[in-house]
Amino acid sequence: MSVYEKLRALKITLPQVTPPAAAFVPYVRAGNLLFVSGHIARKDGKPWVGKLGADLHTAQGQEAARGIAIELLATLHAATGDLNKIMRIVKLLVLVNSTPQFTEQHLVANGASELLVQVFGERGPHARSAFGIAQIPLGSCVEIELIAEIA
Amino acid sequence: MSVYEKLRALKITLPQVTPPAAAFVPYVRAGNLLFVSGHIARKDGKPWVGKLGADLHTAQGQEAARGIAIELLATLHAATGDLNKIMRIVKLLVLVNSTPQFTEQHLVANGASELLVQVFGERGPHARSAFGIAQIPLGSCVEIELIAEIA
Amino acid sequence: MSVYEKLRALKITLPQVTPPAAAFVPYVRAGNLLFVSGHIARKDGKPWVGKLGADLHTAQGQEAARGIAIELLATLHAATGDLNKIMRIVKLLVLVNSTPQFTEQHLVANGASELLVQVFGERGPHARSAFGIAQIPLGSCVEIELIAEIA
Repeated sequence: MSVYEKLRALKITLPQVTPPAAAFVPYVRAGNLLFVSGHIARKDGKPWVGKLGADLHTAQGQEAARGIAIELLATLHAATGDLNKIMRIVKLLVLVNSTPQFTEQHLVANGASELLVQVFGERGPHARSAFGIAQIPLGSCVEIELIAEIA
Repeated sequence: MSVYEKLRALKITLPQVTPPAAAFVPYVRAGNLLFVSGHIARKDGKPWVGKLGADLHTAQGQEAARGIAIELLATLHAATGDLNKIMRIVKLLVLVNSTPQFTEQHLVANGASELLVQVFGERGPHARSAFGIAQIPLGSCVEIELIAEIA
Repeated sequence: MSVYEKLRALKITLPQVTPPAAAFVPYVRAGNLLFVSGHIARKDGKPWVGKLGADLHTAQGQEAARGIAIELLATLHAATGDLNKIMRIVKLLVLVNSTPQFTEQHLVANGASELLVQVFGERGPHARSAFGIAQIPLGSCVEIELIAEIA
């Protein structure tokens, strides 16, 4: 089953990629590695604002992380023209907007990790770091950066 | 116009690189990728201390980020011997010393991103993650890590 | 002296690697680069809980970072089958669970950096970023992510 068939089976439609209005870009390729910029959580097209441990509980954080993974897929599609060219999801950096007490960043991150494994199969399991930070641009609750390997 | 001519036009003089007095080094090359250590903001040769959202406003953070970009250029020059050998600025990781309320890390980061694009032209736009953290070594207000691709 | 002889001289026994019970994996190889997941500090087999600047002082943080470096060595051994195949420790990302006042993340990180240099000799010095964050999964005091280059 191709990546796109899996996305259809999961009823996931890739969003349009909006390039950041700034000096940076959504991704850069260097050799066979694709470095994807940090993507922030969005809901209804706006930043999904809130802090884990105060405004949002873990399940909401997971949903936010899953939503970012879908945005990352859209960016990977824009970068490659064909998601089947992705050889491997290499690494995620998962930043969770956290109070100093919240300690379930790994569970939040699973919302993204599990979707990537569902979509990419054996090319999906990745190295990962997840941790809690003081804030995220525009107050978003989660931000995820990704490295992928291309054929 | 070469990178050095652009630096002259911008009236930027590259500082001396001071290797860290520790077990780590300012950069490591692996294949065609150059991994540059996190550089902290300095002012008058000392760490530029302060927290965005409390001690410093966004414009000061941008100035600090621009200053770090100049230090990064000095390190890239030391690493390559010739900045024109840089094929691409691949990725920045921009860490902003933030209160839990400050949400303009992306604007702070632009201080570095915009200088790199001015200096490197079409080789300058990069992937990027920016976010707010609890503290930075020596109390510095911003820290930036960089990956570049070399010919 | 091989890496294993150095480990014996340092009386370091590598622990068993426990794969994370999740969608991510301890490491992914892409080309000659090995991306190793963030490893958290442990003590007596459990997360070493605490925050620098409140619960733990710098020397304890250094000990925690050194302990993580040993866990990272175990993962590198599992990834390569032979630590002597490591050409270079390329980069560490050192995340220190910090109060907003604690500013000695670089000293904490030295606990890991110095051990890696002891073990790998001239292949050990690496690029590095260290900074303070709001929290770490399971409340652990330090988390370290690593990139290595393989022959």
